[in-house]
Amino acid sequence: MADGRVPNTPSPHIREKRRRRRAEILHAALQAFRENGYHTTTLDDIAERLGVRKTALYHYFPDKESILYECHRESLGEIARMIEEAETCCERPAEKLAYLIREHVRVMTETLEGSPLAFEVPALSPERRAEIIAARDRYERVLRDLVLEGIRGGEFQRVDPKIAVFAILGAINWIARWYRPEGAIHADELGSEFADYLVGGLMCRQPR
Amino acid sequence: MADGRVPNTPSPHIREKRRRRRAEILHAALQAFRENGYHTTTLDDIAERLGVRKTALYHYFPDKESILYECHRESLGEIARMIEEAETCCERPAEKLAYLIREHVRVMTETLEGSPLAFEVPALSPERRAEIIAARDRYERVLRDLVLEGIRGGEFQRVDPKIAVFAILGAINWIARWYRPEGAIHADELGSEFADYLVGGLMCRQPR
Repeated sequence: MADGRVPNTPSPHIREKRRRRRAEILHAALQAFRENGYHTTTLDDIAERLGVRKTALYHYFPDKESILYECHRESLGEIARMIEEAETCCERPAEKLAYLIREHVRVMTETLEGSPLAFEVPALSPERRAEIIAARDRYERVLRDLVLEGIRGGEFQRVDPKIAVFAILGAINWIARWYRPEGAIHADELGSEFADYLVGGLMCRQPR
Repeated sequence: MADGRVPNTPSPHIREKRRRRRAEILHAALQAFRENGYHTTTLDDIAERLGVRKTALYHYFPDKESILYECHRESLGEIARMIEEAETCCERPAEKLAYLIREHVRVMTETLEGSPLAFEVPALSPERRAEIIAARDRYERVLRDLVLEGIRGGEFQRVDPKIAVFAILGAINWIARWYRPEGAIHADELGSEFADYLVGGLMCRQPR
């Protein structure tokens, strides 16, 4: 441009490069949060993991809290996709619930390095916290409705859907605390075992 | 004493008073940690909840980390007692496991204000962290051995004991994140529902 202004619309190549860089920053940040905790992690720590200077991060995020917020948004976006898929691919509540548990475990273990997201909501600003909590509440309602549907259809026992869903989410969120990608437990196996166990505990049982 | 020294051995009355005061401090600290997070809580916040000045706390604890550490020790002491009781009062692995789940839920909900203990290990010094983690590991082994015993005796399905125990502990520890003593879910009911659900998921099932 003759007057020296930066063009408003970057080329597809640049957009893709930025998108990838952004994902790398989120990934490095989550690793750092997980290893050292959100509070002790600095922007310098995150930059160092990427082999860049802190100022390079400012092209993408204004501060550490914004990075955490975007991590949350990405993870909740994945969960929204999971919910749609479960509706399309499964029929009975037990199948849908097993699908969601397996996929949620996958999000926890693979996409986000055993995400510390489950733990860092209090670090967000009040507005962002409210947004993330509202999205989580929607997800909880979907799970509760599935449990309720299973009870009404005679597939599940008469549990308290609220308590059962808290147990399920606790089991899944806790993965962030103990799971090591390099450890003996494989992510797929973990998802299947959790689905079998946590849906199995809801199913109507015949006494032996 | 004629020379003005403080006696070395306080009277039973004073000892009891100190013991109660100490428990009050731990209790107030846990409430503060839970409401505002460990990192943002100050000794002044804890003192304010007790209607005293910060200096009064120094008679009991040198710093905030020591308070957190003592909270952990108390809670792990309770868990050690639970394990002994389960051995005495129950016979089959399923009963023992159900007992431990119910009692652990009780510790989480009643004794320690929906304890934030489950979450604050990284805030401890390396030595103290190692001690607390070792005690937790011992507890995890007890639970895994019970699952294994149940599988060998034909009572439980052939699950991965490690994964099942992570699910159980995740469900229980997560209580600290959502449980409100003034809420609709009663602690006893929560313990029983968790025990039914989490032991039920392990039991051998007849297909319907």
